[in-house]
Amino acid sequence: MSKKTTGSFTLPGESGYETLTLQLAERWGADVIRDSDGTKLSDEIINAGYGIYSTICIIRDHNEWARKNLDKLQQCFLITGAKVAVQDYISIYLMEDFFDEQFRVNDSKEALKYWQVYDRTTGEEVPREQWNYERESGNVVISGITPWHKYTVSFMVYRIWEEISMYNHTTNHWDKEHLMQIDPMYADTQKYLLEWMEAWCEQHKETTVVRFTSLFYNFAWIWGSNERNRHLFTDWGAYDFTVSSRALDLFEKKYGYSLTAEDFVNGGKYRVSHILAEQRKLDYMAFINDFVIDFGKQLIDIVHKHDKLAYVFYDDSWVGMEPYNDRFQEFGFDGMIKCVFSGYEARLCSGVKVDTHEIRLHPYLFPVGLGGLPTFMEGGDPTLDAKKYWINIRRALLREPIDRIGLGGYLHLVEPYPDFCDYIEKIANEFREIKELHDKGKPYHIKTKVAVLHSWGKLRAWTLSGHFHETYMHDLIHINEALSGLPIEVQFIDFEDIRQGVLQNCDVVINAGSAGSAWSGGGNWHDHKCVDLLTKWVYEGGTFIGVNQPSAVEGHDTFFRMSHVLGLDEDTGARVAHGKWTFEASDEHGFVPEGASIAPKNNIYLTDGSAAVVGEVSGMVTLSTHTFGKGKGIYLPSFEFSLENTRLLLNIIRYAGDELHETKYITDNLYTECTYYPESKILVVINNSDEVQRTTIDTEYGKQTMELEPYDTIIRTIGELVIK
Amino acid sequence: MSKKTTGSFTLPGESGYETLTLQLAERWGADVIRDSDGTKLSDEIINAGYGIYSTICIIRDHNEWARKNLDKLQQCFLITGAKVAVQDYISIYLMEDFFDEQFRVNDSKEALKYWQVYDRTTGEEVPREQWNYERESGNVVISGITPWHKYTVSFMVYRIWEEISMYNHTTNHWDKEHLMQIDPMYADTQKYLLEWMEAWCEQHKETTVVRFTSLFYNFAWIWGSNERNRHLFTDWGAYDFTVSSRALDLFEKKYGYSLTAEDFVNGGKYRVSHILAEQRKLDYMAFINDFVIDFGKQLIDIVHKHDKLAYVFYDDSWVGMEPYNDRFQEFGFDGMIKCVFSGYEARLCSGVKVDTHEIRLHPYLFPVGLGGLPTFMEGGDPTLDAKKYWINIRRALLREPIDRIGLGGYLHLVEPYPDFCDYIEKIANEFREIKELHDKGKPYHIKTKVAVLHSWGKLRAWTLSGHFHETYMHDLIHINEALSGLPIEVQFIDFEDIRQGVLQNCDVVINAGSAGSAWSGGGNWHDHKCVDLLTKWVYEGGTFIGVNQPSAVEGHDTFFRMSHVLGLDEDTGARVAHGKWTFEASDEHGFVPEGASIAPKNNIYLTDGSAAVVGEVSGMVTLSTHTFGKGKGIYLPSFEFSLENTRLLLNIIRYAGDELHETKYITDNLYTECTYYPESKILVVINNSDEVQRTTIDTEYGKQTMELEPYDTIIRTIGELVIK
Repeated sequence: MSKKTTGSFTLPGESGYETLTLQLAERWGADVIRDSDGTKLSDEIINAGYGIYSTICIIRDHNEWARKNLDKLQQCFLITGAKVAVQDYISIYLMEDFFDEQFRVNDSKEALKYWQVYDRTTGEEVPREQWNYERESGNVVISGITPWHKYTVSFMVYRIWEEISMYNHTTNHWDKEHLMQIDPMYADTQKYLLEWMEAWCEQHKETTVVRFTSLFYNFAWIWGSNERNRHLFTDWGAYDFTVSSRALDLFEKKYGYSLTAEDFVNGGKYRVSHILAEQRKLDYMAFINDFVIDFGKQLIDIVHKHDKLAYVFYDDSWVGMEPYNDRFQEFGFDGMIKCVFSGYEARLCSGVKVDTHEIRLHPYLFPVGLGGLPTFMEGGDPTLDAKKYWINIRRALLREPIDRIGLGGYLHLVEPYPDFCDYIEKIANEFREIKELHDKGKPYHIKTKVAVLHSWGKLRAWTLSGHFHETYMHDLIHINEALSGLPIEVQFIDFEDIRQGVLQNCDVVINAGSAGSAWSGGGNWHDHKCVDLLTKWVYEGGTFIGVNQPSAVEGHDTFFRMSHVLGLDEDTGARVAHGKWTFEASDEHGFVPEGASIAPKNNIYLTDGSAAVVGEVSGMVTLSTHTFGKGKGIYLPSFEFSLENTRLLLNIIRYAGDELHETKYITDNLYTECTYYPESKILVVINNSDEVQRTTIDTEYGKQTMELEPYDTIIRTIGELVIK
Repeated sequence: MSKKTTGSFTLPGESGYETLTLQLAERWGADVIRDSDGTKLSDEIINAGYGIYSTICIIRDHNEWARKNLDKLQQCFLITGAKVAVQDYISIYLMEDFFDEQFRVNDSKEALKYWQVYDRTTGEEVPREQWNYERESGNVVISGITPWHKYTVSFMVYRIWEEISMYNHTTNHWDKEHLMQIDPMYADTQKYLLEWMEAWCEQHKETTVVRFTSLFYNFAWIWGSNERNRHLFTDWGAYDFTVSSRALDLFEKKYGYSLTAEDFVNGGKYRVSHILAEQRKLDYMAFINDFVIDFGKQLIDIVHKHDKLAYVFYDDSWVGMEPYNDRFQEFGFDGMIKCVFSGYEARLCSGVKVDTHEIRLHPYLFPVGLGGLPTFMEGGDPTLDAKKYWINIRRALLREPIDRIGLGGYLHLVEPYPDFCDYIEKIANEFREIKELHDKGKPYHIKTKVAVLHSWGKLRAWTLSGHFHETYMHDLIHINEALSGLPIEVQFIDFEDIRQGVLQNCDVVINAGSAGSAWSGGGNWHDHKCVDLLTKWVYEGGTFIGVNQPSAVEGHDTFFRMSHVLGLDEDTGARVAHGKWTFEASDEHGFVPEGASIAPKNNIYLTDGSAAVVGEVSGMVTLSTHTFGKGKGIYLPSFEFSLENTRLLLNIIRYAGDELHETKYITDNLYTECTYYPESKILVVINNSDEVQRTTIDTEYGKQTMELEPYDTIIRTIGELVIK
């Protein structure tokens, strides 16, 4: 057990449970008390001498003003399903597919000019004079068209129910007024919000930190009319919900060209973050970023004027905020709070340039968790949940510092769970001890420096878009999660970074994803300059690690543009009549620990037979290495996060950097990991498993062997046991 | 046992085994005796009163002439593996990857002008002045190039070992002279071959049928230098081995544009038959077809002048012959002989417009079979092999007539296998009885007419390219095999046929294959006229059955162009953030028999939720139906030939044609099938399994129930048992 310390902990207080609040604040060493969505703080709590975080969601909770300004609600584009015409006209009911409590058709003159009708069979837009919106029926009638072609209508809507509130409302079966979201793109809204912010600060003298949840625009979350398909589109990184006729008009003025509905709805596919973005989308994102920074800063300035700090919650209405945008610091935020399930989210938070980095742990103090499973109710085991989340996050916290942790939700729910309260006490003390280690100096890392290459580069460092469970189908999130706790320096780069010479600071480049995705890089790989620079860099000693369909793009002699470095390629069908090199798999360096598992892809073939196959399943490659000049190409057909695969990744990165011989500060038991802080000579060893583990670590001061309880942490000055 | 009959049987005779030859000829009811590769017929056999087939392979067995005319050997293009330049020049050894007993570099002036060097990083050709062929070393040296780019050399070679002979030679470890193949594209070769043919006919008075094996050009079969990858490229339908500098020169004269090496080698992919052909390839195929017909006809005319018949073996050097080309009859062939393993090959043969259709059964009388497994040697079971091949073929023979059957190889090998001799006797009698049934009238078929749609259309009816074991990875060969024995009228159509109105004669269109393949149709699906015509046709009552990636092409709002008819589509990555319709699978019509198995695809999604999912595995669709107007869309993610899946296919086709209620002449046991000949009122029932089966067939004359031995056939006049 770590020693009892205090501070760096944010407790969700709850009016009516004052004794519990103050008792747990004491026990968990809290220095700050916050409110949550659905809870309030009483004067007794507010005046108990703690810092006070107050949560505000700036664009909702203004229903009175919103009702008078329905034309300033937030908006977006929707597109109907494609309908086949069986005659020379067709009538399409716009709202057929959509949840009518979320959307209302915006047929104002300003909006209507952005509506579009498409012949999806030919891909051509239908001229405006051939269609008409019948307001009463809600139909668009298209005439003079080609029978047997299919047609869509892209139209604008107001969003009439703020999405996070809508989600909490429907999930918890609330029976209260629907909160609307107002759009600060309009001058009147800005004026109203600035005055409101000023008044709010006046009225909340006790608040030390204003916690913005988050800023103005939610990630795209389009709900459907049918319970069989309620969530039509969910993209935590998309800008669809920033759209309004005013925003589009302003964009045209600034950029000299006009965006259309199609730039957003994309024939029904929308512009998902996982697919390569075109320049028009990048321009629009920049336009919205500029606006969000500009108006966000005005609000933050008010907060600062009242001698309060401004923290931002990096979830929900985060769109346009982009913490790894070079302009992020212009906001003037004092802190960032990130809700975390996973290690990569902790790394995402720790890398942002603000004074205070805080993570909100899980489980949230709610009866049910995000997946709908019980937490603080019958059938739940919140302590076990907390342990599992903690082992995901702890390894990342050991690599890079986080300043604060906290919880959220209804505090009274923890009362029947004394185990949980004990465990949070343990975590809180452990967290503070780890934080203190970072203060004394950076932890040891291996020499090999890794860069993750994808089309978003550092803008979307660590995360793809959203939480792990939303992006688990992408190899890269698994790799990011593995990397988040490994003793390796990691950076995220894009193709322009390569052209600008970033490779001179990299030993390993990882490119992981499916063809055409933002993560693999899609069309960026047409640019042979990047291929040339990577080729030269590998030849001179670098290592290119490709996962799934790395560097894949159609139109060249090979599907993988880096096939000459990898020594293999994927057959997309044209090589079905080609012979395939046979091979014998051999793991001579012992890269693949027992329990590691890589799912193969069927159509991977060796290009010239010189790649060394390290692993195979049913004759399909699962791991290969290929010497290219002084460097290497390494290929994995997929990567799924697990403790065993994480060790496999560490092994191949050490091999890439020619430091496989250096075994110091690497546990000999992959279910444990360690971090060494040279300045303080402290070694932290963690058990990531639910079983007792014995582990030995080679150090400058000899081998350290220890036994760890399930999920446990040992912090030891080398050669001497300090605390268990 | 069928009654003893004679005729329609070709026996492979063998000199030195005269008694055996004549005894088996008698027993199997042979009317013709043939020689084989490696056997001769003695005078005793020749004069025994049988028709005599003599096998000639017109382009080989002329080594004396070939040695004097090494510049008239057959040729082809090869391409080196891509090599990365690490300086501004690179030297590439041309023959590194290739089997030097098959190829010799053709650096004649005529050939050299067709060589090409490519920068494969940029995709651009390197100008002629930047490279030089160093004859002595066999290298091409390329200079003034960009370091880190990769380069290939496309060059011309003579083929110095006829491929089928090479295969037989190396497989059987022969120790004799390598046979070269001469190219009739050259005038001298033509003159020589015409004289040789004339002389041969003079010398072979006893021959009644000249069996061409086959004509001039072998399918593409490029062997490699390394035993780990011996068969670099094998395409039974490709025209690569017809190339010569003379052919290319003549092509340019005729078509007004010049082909390049790249038109053949395609960056190393070559132009495989399974991938959509471009117009340049189609032009070249037409050019070669014209030549092969023109010169082939001259040889056949000589044969006819000598009062012999000319049959052609449809394998090996078949390229340019295309039996479903509209011009095929111009050859004047009297018969076609097809080696068959599968039902679809029997249908392929029976549909060709010649007087006599003969199939050569398997196993071939060789110690080992095609896969290298023992046949007529220890460890082999040739009788079981024969039964298995026969059940593949028999169901096709019941649907469409074949005139003759035969065997090939070394007859003496059958001596230790009396079982085999008995079984061939049984097959021969059964075959003759089936043949006789066809003479009296066509068998009953269901009303629903099926068209298989792919980009080759009828030109490549039934086959894809080659045998089943070479094309098993394509769904369509499995479908063709299933269809080959079903009571359904089948035609093969292409996209131009659709534009020309063929749909008015179709009830069902099947489109099966992976995206971009010739079988799915690839770029043909960009033409929305075909989509329109199919859409209208389905709306008015047709059924579109899509398998795997039907109608798939990138660049539209959906990946499957017929998604509106199928009610589903495939997500290629852009819809990863979209919700998916949930569904309950229900097989209300009982389409899916026990034991049927369809492998699902991961990224299939319902477009608007209205498709009815009939089958699913782990939440993935394995069979769905979708009502569209009066018609239907039916989807299967894959199709593998099995008796159970064949019945599934029959069921959905009957459903498509609204004749699911009509159960006459369909067995109630899927391991059996039946064919009914209305004119003769004869019902043939076959057991396709290795177990005893009991089956009942509803007929116009009441239900017929019978029990069949493993693999057995029952031929019954309805209401009365005739023969077993």
